[in-house]
Amino acid sequence: MTAFSADGTDVCLIPVPLTAAAFAPFGGVIEMPAQGGHSINDGMAVIHADPVILDLNRTGGRASLQLVRARPLPLPARLQRLERHMLSSQTFLPVGNRRFLVVVASGQGTGADDLRAFVTDGRQGVHYAASTWHHPLIAWAEEADFVVIGRSAAAVDCEYVDLTRTVVLTDPEGEHP
Amino acid sequence: MTAFSADGTDVCLIPVPLTAAAFAPFGGVIEMPAQGGHSINDGMAVIHADPVILDLNRTGGRASLQLVRARPLPLPARLQRLERHMLSSQTFLPVGNRRFLVVVASGQGTGADDLRAFVTDGRQGVHYAASTWHHPLIAWAEEADFVVIGRSAAAVDCEYVDLTRTVVLTDPEGEHP
Repeated sequence: MTAFSADGTDVCLIPVPLTAAAFAPFGGVIEMPAQGGHSINDGMAVIHADPVILDLNRTGGRASLQLVRARPLPLPARLQRLERHMLSSQTFLPVGNRRFLVVVASGQGTGADDLRAFVTDGRQGVHYAASTWHHPLIAWAEEADFVVIGRSAAAVDCEYVDLTRTVVLTDPEGEHP
Repeated sequence: MTAFSADGTDVCLIPVPLTAAAFAPFGGVIEMPAQGGHSINDGMAVIHADPVILDLNRTGGRASLQLVRARPLPLPARLQRLERHMLSSQTFLPVGNRRFLVVVASGQGTGADDLRAFVTDGRQGVHYAASTWHHPLIAWAEEADFVVIGRSAAAVDCEYVDLTRTVVLTDPEGEHP
């Protein structure tokens, strides 16, 4: 959700709960569907049939997995820049039960009118589609570890852009729990 | 750990805590290292520099991610068969804080002398190297959800083998917590 201050310059960005429908333009939400799936392993497990195909093979890329520990960002906080990966998707999965903040832009990323902010439920992961502008990882309320699945290749696939307007990310619940 | 019954036929397999050193012959343990890493994102995160390269590109394969919900297996339980993927690695990451049981074989998988069983600490994931014989996913004590990262391709890459000896997986703690 974006809301503009009286002078029309600053943007106050208030995260809303992450849902697959709202996040669809940016990639996908990694979470157990509420229903469906089919039985495997002699009835010992249920698998959900629609895999998320990770976009990691372009120009010699391989899937790689890394561990990242993120510090919480005290809110409200001014956001400075976004990044994107033109050749690859990127996936963030929390270790344990940890909520985190997700900021994405649907357009060119340099402005702020198209910014969206979400907060996960602690079990959800996110998958950014290739070329989606997104803010670097933001833990929420406490330090958190993440498994990050990205592209390993000879050339780095990361672009940055500075936000041209003042964007203030606001605590979705006023106080951290 | 394997222990043989008096008649030398049955194998009682007692899971031990999963460690990276013990699991190295079979793949890798996905967990935050106790130390090291370097700062990224303007000091807001620490990344561990050695990525696990997932082995998923062979013969047109792409990385895919699926959600699986596994039921716990009441222990002691007789194990029936193992599986392996000759063309690809496979990674299991628990959603939330969930321990699970890992059974692997270092050799041909049909016997039982080379079986090893581990129990994770709730935060750990595992990465089976290509061609590693392993038991299908076993939740421990309670139902658990997992993100599974494997290979998506036209041809299925899965072989099974029935265990030729009686292998009984035993509760590592006598009683479930």
